[in-house]
Amino acid sequence: MAGWTSSGAVASDTEPQLVDRGAKPSGTVVEVRGVQIGGRTVDLDSSPCAVESAEQLLATATAVRDSGAAILRGGAFKPRTSPYSFQGLKEEGLELLAWVRRETGMPVVTEVMDTRKVEEVSAHADMLQVGSRHMHSYPLLEEVGRSGMPVLLKRGMSATLDEFLFAAEYVLKQGNERVVLCERGIRTFEQSTRNTLDLNAVPMLKRRTHLPVIVDPSHGTGHWWMVPCLSRAAVAVGADGLLVEVHPDPDNALSDGPQSLKPERFDVMMQELRPVAIAVGREISAPRH
Amino acid sequence: MAGWTSSGAVASDTEPQLVDRGAKPSGTVVEVRGVQIGGRTVDLDSSPCAVESAEQLLATATAVRDSGAAILRGGAFKPRTSPYSFQGLKEEGLELLAWVRRETGMPVVTEVMDTRKVEEVSAHADMLQVGSRHMHSYPLLEEVGRSGMPVLLKRGMSATLDEFLFAAEYVLKQGNERVVLCERGIRTFEQSTRNTLDLNAVPMLKRRTHLPVIVDPSHGTGHWWMVPCLSRAAVAVGADGLLVEVHPDPDNALSDGPQSLKPERFDVMMQELRPVAIAVGREISAPRH
Amino acid sequence: MAGWTSSGAVASDTEPQLVDRGAKPSGTVVEVRGVQIGGRTVDLDSSPCAVESAEQLLATATAVRDSGAAILRGGAFKPRTSPYSFQGLKEEGLELLAWVRRETGMPVVTEVMDTRKVEEVSAHADMLQVGSRHMHSYPLLEEVGRSGMPVLLKRGMSATLDEFLFAAEYVLKQGNERVVLCERGIRTFEQSTRNTLDLNAVPMLKRRTHLPVIVDPSHGTGHWWMVPCLSRAAVAVGADGLLVEVHPDPDNALSDGPQSLKPERFDVMMQELRPVAIAVGREISAPRH
Amino acid sequence: MAGWTSSGAVASDTEPQLVDRGAKPSGTVVEVRGVQIGGRTVDLDSSPCAVESAEQLLATATAVRDSGAAILRGGAFKPRTSPYSFQGLKEEGLELLAWVRRETGMPVVTEVMDTRKVEEVSAHADMLQVGSRHMHSYPLLEEVGRSGMPVLLKRGMSATLDEFLFAAEYVLKQGNERVVLCERGIRTFEQSTRNTLDLNAVPMLKRRTHLPVIVDPSHGTGHWWMVPCLSRAAVAVGADGLLVEVHPDPDNALSDGPQSLKPERFDVMMQELRPVAIAVGREISAPRH
Repeated sequence: MAGWTSSGAVASDTEPQLVDRGAKPSGTVVEVRGVQIGGRTVDLDSSPCAVESAEQLLATATAVRDSGAAILRGGAFKPRTSPYSFQGLKEEGLELLAWVRRETGMPVVTEVMDTRKVEEVSAHADMLQVGSRHMHSYPLLEEVGRSGMPVLLKRGMSATLDEFLFAAEYVLKQGNERVVLCERGIRTFEQSTRNTLDLNAVPMLKRRTHLPVIVDPSHGTGHWWMVPCLSRAAVAVGADGLLVEVHPDPDNALSDGPQSLKPERFDVMMQELRPVAIAVGREISAPRH
Repeated sequence: MAGWTSSGAVASDTEPQLVDRGAKPSGTVVEVRGVQIGGRTVDLDSSPCAVESAEQLLATATAVRDSGAAILRGGAFKPRTSPYSFQGLKEEGLELLAWVRRETGMPVVTEVMDTRKVEEVSAHADMLQVGSRHMHSYPLLEEVGRSGMPVLLKRGMSATLDEFLFAAEYVLKQGNERVVLCERGIRTFEQSTRNTLDLNAVPMLKRRTHLPVIVDPSHGTGHWWMVPCLSRAAVAVGADGLLVEVHPDPDNALSDGPQSLKPERFDVMMQELRPVAIAVGREISAPRH
Repeated sequence: MAGWTSSGAVASDTEPQLVDRGAKPSGTVVEVRGVQIGGRTVDLDSSPCAVESAEQLLATATAVRDSGAAILRGGAFKPRTSPYSFQGLKEEGLELLAWVRRETGMPVVTEVMDTRKVEEVSAHADMLQVGSRHMHSYPLLEEVGRSGMPVLLKRGMSATLDEFLFAAEYVLKQGNERVVLCERGIRTFEQSTRNTLDLNAVPMLKRRTHLPVIVDPSHGTGHWWMVPCLSRAAVAVGADGLLVEVHPDPDNALSDGPQSLKPERFDVMMQELRPVAIAVGREISAPRH
Repeated sequence: MAGWTSSGAVASDTEPQLVDRGAKPSGTVVEVRGVQIGGRTVDLDSSPCAVESAEQLLATATAVRDSGAAILRGGAFKPRTSPYSFQGLKEEGLELLAWVRRETGMPVVTEVMDTRKVEEVSAHADMLQVGSRHMHSYPLLEEVGRSGMPVLLKRGMSATLDEFLFAAEYVLKQGNERVVLCERGIRTFEQSTRNTLDLNAVPMLKRRTHLPVIVDPSHGTGHWWMVPCLSRAAVAVGADGLLVEVHPDPDNALSDGPQSLKPERFDVMMQELRPVAIAVGREISAPRH
């Protein structure tokens, strides 16, 4: 059993085991309802940060799908620093996500923050996100592990890469290796960006683990105008995918407007990304328009 | 209702409301089964990091009580970076804590990490700890808020003081203002100490909130030999209490041995703390030996 | 010779040698024109951040001397982030310092930033300060080492304690062991204080080196109202001295007003510090009023 | 005059003036003996970290020149944390650099750490480097400004981008706008890389200033195997050049071996960079073999 040698002695607790690259040198491809993450194609997951209404969600989903985005992310339960900030549409948001999934055919990923909600969220989505604030929440990691669902695991705000890999290990230890790691910026002294997107993490993680690694330049920088060039950098450094926030009307977004691209800018970004992907031997899925 | 003005307009989400010093200028005293935190007496909460056995727990509890410790902390559910590290005795650990509580008369505080466990843990303990890894877990904060139990809220590893206060606000918003804040060191570039104990946080928090603020020099430094002098500094800077790890046999502790004091050193430390407390107009409860 | 064994092999470059506690277990007392730093008495060095005028400097010096301050610090050459900020009175500031030294009898410490100025500054002051911005400037450290003057070495903004000790080693390697280390806050993600005063550094440095260690709570916090309680904490944690900014009119200070105490508050602070010093077996020099 | 309005009022000290993008929207191209930095071509500056011997230097220079490197960097005066580490060949190193410059025709950049050495170093090199440890050393910045030489200014270990721009402002204020900024990694809690290369800095700096911005992935990561992919990312994000350490025998390098590429790996890296540069509308100078 994981973590235990056949003689019953406990395995070392200083190195993750199941996520280690040596355990699967060829690398893991995580499939999310037909979309493969970790293969030759660099996947674009795109989203409004929060699900606000049916129109907003469908408009965004259709636009990003037509630009080539493969997976739709939308927040139904939103972790917000202040209890007075918009907390998401919750159950209603889940219903909207499931509806848009049917309308667009796109697989859907959404965050779960509470062990009690894992089952319900699993019934409405194709992939569960464990956000930065919960990367260290081991009961939650075990519960999403037991669900068997694909898991999008975001790096904690100041998690070392060791801690990040151990967090994934908690999921794999439940028999679920459908885990995608997401670098989303770390907390440093620098305040001109919301976080410091740590692209060093991508090659370091790819060397140490067989799991796919994607990058979230929207949270990583906090500025929409930085997202395209950091996205190019992320593809160039070897990321297996991108998670980019898109909103039809960023100025009036209920959450994270300043870091959201408009759909038309997202489309331009996608076109600019293709040659970079090709330059490093990867490709980006074709737009449907 | 909290966060909403009587006209129905939403309150600002950039400032916490209920925890604000202005809401209760005289300061809150949190009572935990007869022990008052936040008054003139600086409270000592002491603990083995993890509950390992009945003997270990009772021996430690009796010793620290006789040295003047008021509250016993013990970990039944232990959040550990590696899933292969000792995870605590769990339900059995809760039973042991409840037993030692009866034997010694000391109130007991223990950590809860899972919303589904709040009720069970509340039945065995006098105070619930929300640890650093879960400070950003809003569903958990709401659940411990609803429990009505006193809450020991530890600062997240890289949480700003704003985020720390907002985390407490989540608890108070449920109608529970029995919250004690605990500074336990932040994550910095400096690696000679486990964390960087941030004593600046104490006066800054005391100015901004009416809640009591205590300090954990054991996690804050990671070195047992640093605990006595940082404890003196914490009392001098105005902390309302200390959370200190004590273990009868640190070399063989299942968790956090290097930062645990032996009971006899803890006793010396208590004696050295008294004149410091008096020098700043506070006192420390008398030893019972 | 320092760093070389008798056989000519180079000494390890991973550990400082001359500053090591083992090289002088009893500890070094640095004498600055009659004032001893590192002995039983906790020294108070006090200063306006910048020398602005003869009146301001003499008024401050007289006031802090009467409250018990032993050494006067004043900035003649001021390192400022912006070239458009007040850069100090330079040579004129040195003359003013030398004049106030004569008037008050207090030894004077001032910063030197340029190897070419070491001789001139040495002629006007009793102690040379190497500031945070120059802690890594090895040619400057060697030059102040060669001067034979007492050196006040401030920790770099993000210097590890290893780097800090090696910086001191550069001075001692020139045959000058009159070095006083000063913790002044490190750079972290936390923005509510100007820096994060790292009091853990005090016991860690005292264990590793025989050099005296003092604390600058003014730069360490950036808020004058935090200075008294962090000063108490610094004394309680074992600091050999304090460096505190005082200004007769903080609102109109040309530099660092928000972190400067008024002389009358400094006097109150000194009175509050005495019992804390006594509580930890130290003393603070008596006021002269 | 810079920083003063015509009415004599002092300019704001909260924003740099001369380096501001608005002062020269088209961007500055810095010419270093025929090589242009900041134009369409992404320049490769390559170097052994320290100059060790004539053979090592010439072999490295010839190899990297043949792979397309435009400028040679070599350390004659080496700032080392420990005074017992190799400190560079100093004056002899300068002579060697000047000799290799003649032999290869490559312009040479080397570090200066002492105001007293600016003239001498200027006589032997084509560009002066101000290293991370001296970014805050304003007298040095002013002296290199007055020299009129092109300046390679590296970001301080924990310098904010504001401070970085102000450091450049000190140089420009002396009438010298031949400044190239270099991102080289910042200090964070993450310890698996030597520093955290902050690629967010590139677009943020390019937006705020007209000066060219290059990237040093060798110091930024500390691992030679990470250099190629971070170099690709740096080009993709918009860097105007790269500074890459190359050593013919990294295992026996006197400084920074673990982060140095062998010449043959550097050549492969250059070939891989070309399509990435083209993908973002740039080019890389052709190899001469």
